[in-house]
Amino acid sequence: MCGIVGMVGNGPVNQDIYDALLLLQHRGQDATGIATAEPSGIMHMAKAEGMVREAFRTRDMRALLGNVGLGHVRYATKGTASNEEEMQPFYVNAPYGIVLIHNGNLTNTRELTADMANRDRRHLNSSSDTELLLNVLAGELQASASDVDLDADRVFDAVERTHARVEGAYAVIAIIAGYGLLAFRDPFGIRPLILGRRAGAAAGDADEWVVTSESLVLENADYEIVREVEPGEAVFITDDGELFTRQCAQRTQLTPCAFEYVYLARPDSVMNGVSVYESRLRMGDRLADTIAKHVPLDEIDVVMPIPDSSRPSAMEVARKLGKEYREGFYKNRYVGRTFIMPGQAVRKKSVRQKLNAMSSEFRGKNVLLIDDSIVRGTTSMQIIQMARDAGAKSVIFASAAPPVRHPHVYGINMPSRHELVAHGRTIPEIAEVLGADRMVYQEVEDLKAAIIEGSDLEDLDMSCFDGRYITGTITPEYLDWVEKSQTS
Amino acid sequence: MCGIVGMVGNGPVNQDIYDALLLLQHRGQDATGIATAEPSGIMHMAKAEGMVREAFRTRDMRALLGNVGLGHVRYATKGTASNEEEMQPFYVNAPYGIVLIHNGNLTNTRELTADMANRDRRHLNSSSDTELLLNVLAGELQASASDVDLDADRVFDAVERTHARVEGAYAVIAIIAGYGLLAFRDPFGIRPLILGRRAGAAAGDADEWVVTSESLVLENADYEIVREVEPGEAVFITDDGELFTRQCAQRTQLTPCAFEYVYLARPDSVMNGVSVYESRLRMGDRLADTIAKHVPLDEIDVVMPIPDSSRPSAMEVARKLGKEYREGFYKNRYVGRTFIMPGQAVRKKSVRQKLNAMSSEFRGKNVLLIDDSIVRGTTSMQIIQMARDAGAKSVIFASAAPPVRHPHVYGINMPSRHELVAHGRTIPEIAEVLGADRMVYQEVEDLKAAIIEGSDLEDLDMSCFDGRYITGTITPEYLDWVEKSQTS
Amino acid sequence: MCGIVGMVGNGPVNQDIYDALLLLQHRGQDATGIATAEPSGIMHMAKAEGMVREAFRTRDMRALLGNVGLGHVRYATKGTASNEEEMQPFYVNAPYGIVLIHNGNLTNTRELTADMANRDRRHLNSSSDTELLLNVLAGELQASASDVDLDADRVFDAVERTHARVEGAYAVIAIIAGYGLLAFRDPFGIRPLILGRRAGAAAGDADEWVVTSESLVLENADYEIVREVEPGEAVFITDDGELFTRQCAQRTQLTPCAFEYVYLARPDSVMNGVSVYESRLRMGDRLADTIAKHVPLDEIDVVMPIPDSSRPSAMEVARKLGKEYREGFYKNRYVGRTFIMPGQAVRKKSVRQKLNAMSSEFRGKNVLLIDDSIVRGTTSMQIIQMARDAGAKSVIFASAAPPVRHPHVYGINMPSRHELVAHGRTIPEIAEVLGADRMVYQEVEDLKAAIIEGSDLEDLDMSCFDGRYITGTITPEYLDWVEKSQTS
Amino acid sequence: MCGIVGMVGNGPVNQDIYDALLLLQHRGQDATGIATAEPSGIMHMAKAEGMVREAFRTRDMRALLGNVGLGHVRYATKGTASNEEEMQPFYVNAPYGIVLIHNGNLTNTRELTADMANRDRRHLNSSSDTELLLNVLAGELQASASDVDLDADRVFDAVERTHARVEGAYAVIAIIAGYGLLAFRDPFGIRPLILGRRAGAAAGDADEWVVTSESLVLENADYEIVREVEPGEAVFITDDGELFTRQCAQRTQLTPCAFEYVYLARPDSVMNGVSVYESRLRMGDRLADTIAKHVPLDEIDVVMPIPDSSRPSAMEVARKLGKEYREGFYKNRYVGRTFIMPGQAVRKKSVRQKLNAMSSEFRGKNVLLIDDSIVRGTTSMQIIQMARDAGAKSVIFASAAPPVRHPHVYGINMPSRHELVAHGRTIPEIAEVLGADRMVYQEVEDLKAAIIEGSDLEDLDMSCFDGRYITGTITPEYLDWVEKSQTS
Repeated sequence: MCGIVGMVGNGPVNQDIYDALLLLQHRGQDATGIATAEPSGIMHMAKAEGMVREAFRTRDMRALLGNVGLGHVRYATKGTASNEEEMQPFYVNAPYGIVLIHNGNLTNTRELTADMANRDRRHLNSSSDTELLLNVLAGELQASASDVDLDADRVFDAVERTHARVEGAYAVIAIIAGYGLLAFRDPFGIRPLILGRRAGAAAGDADEWVVTSESLVLENADYEIVREVEPGEAVFITDDGELFTRQCAQRTQLTPCAFEYVYLARPDSVMNGVSVYESRLRMGDRLADTIAKHVPLDEIDVVMPIPDSSRPSAMEVARKLGKEYREGFYKNRYVGRTFIMPGQAVRKKSVRQKLNAMSSEFRGKNVLLIDDSIVRGTTSMQIIQMARDAGAKSVIFASAAPPVRHPHVYGINMPSRHELVAHGRTIPEIAEVLGADRMVYQEVEDLKAAIIEGSDLEDLDMSCFDGRYITGTITPEYLDWVEKSQTS
Repeated sequence: MCGIVGMVGNGPVNQDIYDALLLLQHRGQDATGIATAEPSGIMHMAKAEGMVREAFRTRDMRALLGNVGLGHVRYATKGTASNEEEMQPFYVNAPYGIVLIHNGNLTNTRELTADMANRDRRHLNSSSDTELLLNVLAGELQASASDVDLDADRVFDAVERTHARVEGAYAVIAIIAGYGLLAFRDPFGIRPLILGRRAGAAAGDADEWVVTSESLVLENADYEIVREVEPGEAVFITDDGELFTRQCAQRTQLTPCAFEYVYLARPDSVMNGVSVYESRLRMGDRLADTIAKHVPLDEIDVVMPIPDSSRPSAMEVARKLGKEYREGFYKNRYVGRTFIMPGQAVRKKSVRQKLNAMSSEFRGKNVLLIDDSIVRGTTSMQIIQMARDAGAKSVIFASAAPPVRHPHVYGINMPSRHELVAHGRTIPEIAEVLGADRMVYQEVEDLKAAIIEGSDLEDLDMSCFDGRYITGTITPEYLDWVEKSQTS
Repeated sequence: MCGIVGMVGNGPVNQDIYDALLLLQHRGQDATGIATAEPSGIMHMAKAEGMVREAFRTRDMRALLGNVGLGHVRYATKGTASNEEEMQPFYVNAPYGIVLIHNGNLTNTRELTADMANRDRRHLNSSSDTELLLNVLAGELQASASDVDLDADRVFDAVERTHARVEGAYAVIAIIAGYGLLAFRDPFGIRPLILGRRAGAAAGDADEWVVTSESLVLENADYEIVREVEPGEAVFITDDGELFTRQCAQRTQLTPCAFEYVYLARPDSVMNGVSVYESRLRMGDRLADTIAKHVPLDEIDVVMPIPDSSRPSAMEVARKLGKEYREGFYKNRYVGRTFIMPGQAVRKKSVRQKLNAMSSEFRGKNVLLIDDSIVRGTTSMQIIQMARDAGAKSVIFASAAPPVRHPHVYGINMPSRHELVAHGRTIPEIAEVLGADRMVYQEVEDLKAAIIEGSDLEDLDMSCFDGRYITGTITPEYLDWVEKSQTS
Repeated sequence: MCGIVGMVGNGPVNQDIYDALLLLQHRGQDATGIATAEPSGIMHMAKAEGMVREAFRTRDMRALLGNVGLGHVRYATKGTASNEEEMQPFYVNAPYGIVLIHNGNLTNTRELTADMANRDRRHLNSSSDTELLLNVLAGELQASASDVDLDADRVFDAVERTHARVEGAYAVIAIIAGYGLLAFRDPFGIRPLILGRRAGAAAGDADEWVVTSESLVLENADYEIVREVEPGEAVFITDDGELFTRQCAQRTQLTPCAFEYVYLARPDSVMNGVSVYESRLRMGDRLADTIAKHVPLDEIDVVMPIPDSSRPSAMEVARKLGKEYREGFYKNRYVGRTFIMPGQAVRKKSVRQKLNAMSSEFRGKNVLLIDDSIVRGTTSMQIIQMARDAGAKSVIFASAAPPVRHPHVYGINMPSRHELVAHGRTIPEIAEVLGADRMVYQEVEDLKAAIIEGSDLEDLDMSCFDGRYITGTITPEYLDWVEKSQTS
């Protein structure tokens, strides 16, 4: 769960990268980093904990010289938030000098790590799969070019061999110092990556290019959408702005991650040809049907979203059910730390710091709450209790996504299976655990249909709902290992 | 435009003050400060630029010892953002040791400043009216007590004389070291101030008290609402939690600022007995009628809010007009700085950094945009253009507040009259300036009715709409002086 | 043990104050502060922990506007190093606005603190005697001027009444906002204060003035020495550079602190007409005689100083005894913190971090080590052991000051009596405790003579050597109270 | 002009590295860095501008885990002080993971840089010769080991090939992640490097090892001196504390840099078997003879050092000439920045900020000033003027080192030839430029004899005095290029 962006411009790209990261901030708020390269090949890098606006100082930014650059926002996995060694971008100086960022998750890190020690003799200074990926690519680039005259074809050869060695979900952007910007996407296109172009400001200027996780970055900086980077495809843009592309995977199949549409992506993005906002309206439309099947409509007085991402679905549920739509919860934008005075006990962070229920909207009413999805269920439980405390007569809780019952191994942080509230429970059992009068979940097929409807998309990764993993090697042993590593 | 909070507790209040300031953050994001007092009278203070979560370090917070405290978030006026001398709280050590914070604006600062130099011999180290107010109060407290046995009555005597000397809008919280917490509100109750109580955690514990700008602070920390502090009233809570109150003004008349309801306050606050959220729904209801009077309904395909504060009004407009409600604009929560590379020109900050228009919602449609109010008009102009760029066929722009044609002198930052787009213009002229196909403004009487309907409120300060100033001495000469001081 | 400086210039004084503080850094390295005043009366202040070069950032310095200013370096007493509330300067805003700094120690703080609460109704926010002194002065200034037309005479009246109320050692510098710079010295002149003047750079410019702890500040910035501020005298320099002086004490008697000459002052200062460097040479001269009386000269092969302050004395001892002078100890200028790794034990700080013994100078030799003074004896003990470890055959240890057997109550931090190695011990007993083969101490009368010889000085404060306190009220009860407060 | 240290211990080495850097601080105060390696091969690094005590925060230090570590203090060359990219240590991740630090200067950087681009395909991100050296070594290590079973012999093979490729002066310490600590010294032993050992604290513990620039680091932490690392020799200590050594150069010849003895090293160091302190005494002894040859002794009243490094020489000059030795200059330890107020002109930094002349020591006297060496002459000129201003009747200036007339290319920063005051000038001409009544310089042969006397040393690098460069390829063209690169 990260956001990435890379740019080749006719002038300094640091401010544009920074602006793009602000737009991608929703994809990760724990750390951020920017790297740039000057035509001489000299590279600059700044990375720090926290959100973009806090992380970079003016002097950091002014040191980020160069017309080629990339940036990253990071959603840290448990326990790694303040681990400087895990922050992106990563850099290797041989061959050529490469910096690299990545959104996704590799699923054969154990094999790759062994390879690095035994075969590639490359040092890994973190447990980051991004560092692994960079070193695989670096090793292949070294093998690719017997001399220094690197060209696009040799770069693509190296990507081809990288695809053959790594498994999982990955959208990658890298700078090869003195050569250009490289981007590629895994053969299943699980994580998003889109390409944009902007005409140079002056006549005779080269085109300027951007590759990034979400289309809104393009829209915001007046790039036109060229297209999504294809599954398995690599894009190489030279320092001078010349574009090369090549399909570098043997077998490809576009199966993007459904969770991008459910809650990860910004609603104003268009991803794989599908408007995220509209897919959420359609999720609401189909969810309304399922609700109508299971709930007597006179048991619903009002429909309310859990802000912000479920707002479109909830609006559409209300419209279709012919019920009043009200915003009974107010989301507090400003959150802060907990300071422990000496001798004081640690406070439990509560949902109430982030959400406030307006009693006047709840008092005496049968409320239907719509959330985008339910993972652990702890938040939902508190929200339901808040609704009751605010005077709700009854609380029906509906999720625009189906029950999450399986691990997500493609780059979205999720707890272990036994922490998923839906793992091994029926829907009425979940309702009981969460304290809802009734629960309604979207059907798996409805979610899929809501997303792909009207687009060229044929398939989606929905493994956390249905347990079917598109990459071949996700065995029960692997899933056990993943969960064990997380908790250790 | 500030937020204030004061607390008297049975244990350290620093974390609670901090949490309250996060909840009041929408009232000011430029600077913040906290002061606390220990029973010994020792006071601690921390203040810094920026938002609450950035401003206070752990060690600052841990140094803020004491069971009595107050906190402030500040919306800086032009040119004073980084001026440390202007930050609140202010402190004087004679008499007793007093720290004070204030939300509002004094309108006789020229007279008071002269008094300080010529009569009170007190040093002012800033141009802040808060420092003035503190020194007036300090002078009166010094006069009030011929010896050290300060009690509530002598404190109230000093407030009475302070009311007699200062003019304008003010909600004030102060700590008198070793004595207690004092709060008072101007005789017209222009700025809000509400009192809450919480039973002590253990049997025999004293009650805990809070005074603050908005009710949601109470709700969030499980205080019950006692009542609003009355116009002209003072509240004094001793270090031991004993409450004293007295009406300290000769003549009072409750006329709260209408702008709190229009956009300043959080929707989940109840202010002077009026739910802010519901008042905004009613503004939408009445605005719908006005729209219907001026616009053929078939010229409207869809109703959209300018997020966030106009959402309830827009929702209600849509419902009443029977039109579809859609959220065509996405608000970016993350904003950052502009970094200037050597040799680069300064970039103009654009609304587009904060708002993004989703083309799919606009294409080919006649859109009715609802905003809470229009001041300068520059933002509205850009929004209308964004709607057109996104493909809107026509754009009708409606404001839930009437035209702003007069200066606001009671604590809300506004530009000079000639910068107000509605100053000296008819509504069609405004439409032309802003580039809208049509403009609709709420009627002045409708706004008033929408706010006070169903409550005990009888009057409101609506001076920026109608030019009638409740405090006596707002002369044209004064208004000219204010505008001149701002620009100099 | 602090350093102070005040200036009235024709241009900004911030850089000059900063430079002066660097020169006074040896007088205190725990915290530092600067305050300046603009002609308008607006004052600016910056204070921070640590040494001058670390404490002030560029933006702090640039904010310190004004032609009148003062600065302070602080040697913190036990447990108060990081206590922001104790840092100087202190500020009160009534009357007039005053900032004040102070070098010394008041001995009637208990009485003054009670007065503040019961009579002056002024708030003290620290346990600093500087804050007390400022409030006494402020109270007297308030009483002094029935209206605002403050002039030098009224200021001096207030100083006169301040002298009558406070007891102890104090050299004081203050700014009265909008009026000028005030400096005064206690009636016994225990702590130093010197006045300098510099002609304005341009024709017609007013003279520029400085008052400070040590003459080297004057020399370094091309001020000529006007004279020491007399015991009990006050100096007032208006914002425009006009100088007024008046004797404000009833009875005065110059008895400066002997410790300034022994080790506190810089050798290149001239204090009360006595060159510190030359007084140290004379201490060596007289010490040599005492050594010759007690030690067979053939038991001494080489004379070595404990760097830096005993160097002149040691050089003179060697010359007079006709022995070789060598520098066997090297002083490490760079010291740093101790970082504790989790699970590690705390390291004891050792003298060896600061001193290194060069074995080649010690091996097989009878060494005579000269130190300036011995307080606790812990350092001396380690140094003697280092000399032995480096191969010394025998170690004779001599102190240029007599045994320290009594508390110092006039502003030099010393441990309680029972921690003084000489308290209740004969010289042979001390030798045994410290592990020296022999000990030699300067005679009390010799120290006095060495300092005043050839000057107009008639008396010195030598209370820590002889137990005679010049200010009347130092009772055994007071000394007990002081020691108890320090350890609590 | 840098200081380096490396350690292999039985526990965390971070605090010991830090303490060692404090002791080496005199060798460089512009930047500093530490790297450590855990047994797993994970490495940690912290580097920052400024002095050791300012540069490292507690959390930086606590993150520096591992029993193997190295540290560096840096004296920046012109214009690179704040250049983060130039700071040491440097890191490459292939092969193995290597961090490296270096004291010295390579003289064939142009050839090596071309090699990197054309042959090694390794990216250089700075103009640092350390980065070059690291990459040469890394390339040779990669070639050295066809598989991962790296051992000491293969490491030494790589060092052998590194010696063959690089030219100049270099003392190097590196960590090979997961293997151990490597140190080596150039074939002429120009820069110092000494090896120490300490028995493990507990029975059965392995020995602990240190390699560093100066012996005092060993002495201070209770390491015994094993020996200097030989010219051309490499030392490899495994993570487990096993020591391997091998001579890796074809032809070696010990010719250490004379400047270490003249002023760079600390007097309490023993370098190549020569006590630095004693060599300085001998320099004084021989300088006295030369002075006696050129100056009538009755023209000298007093001998004074320019503190600190010329103190031993001056003391010995005084003793031998039978003249009084006095310290007329006081050295200010505390220096700070210059803050420019808006509108102010930049101040010239003056020697007077660092030195103060005590008039009483100068007035009416013929003074003989002793300095360690004279480079540009600007400082000497100011000092001579200060002596005159303080009242000196005449000023004779003597230098313990001969005239510096040639560039220093082996790691000591010097200006270009035309900035050297002695370049192209006779001694009387220099006297005239500097304003001295007379000048006396040490003879070249006397300096050499003073250093090597009584030791096994046979030769010294004295190229900046005599223009003879021990490494073969220092051509006039090269010297021109060096000077041109510095000024550009």
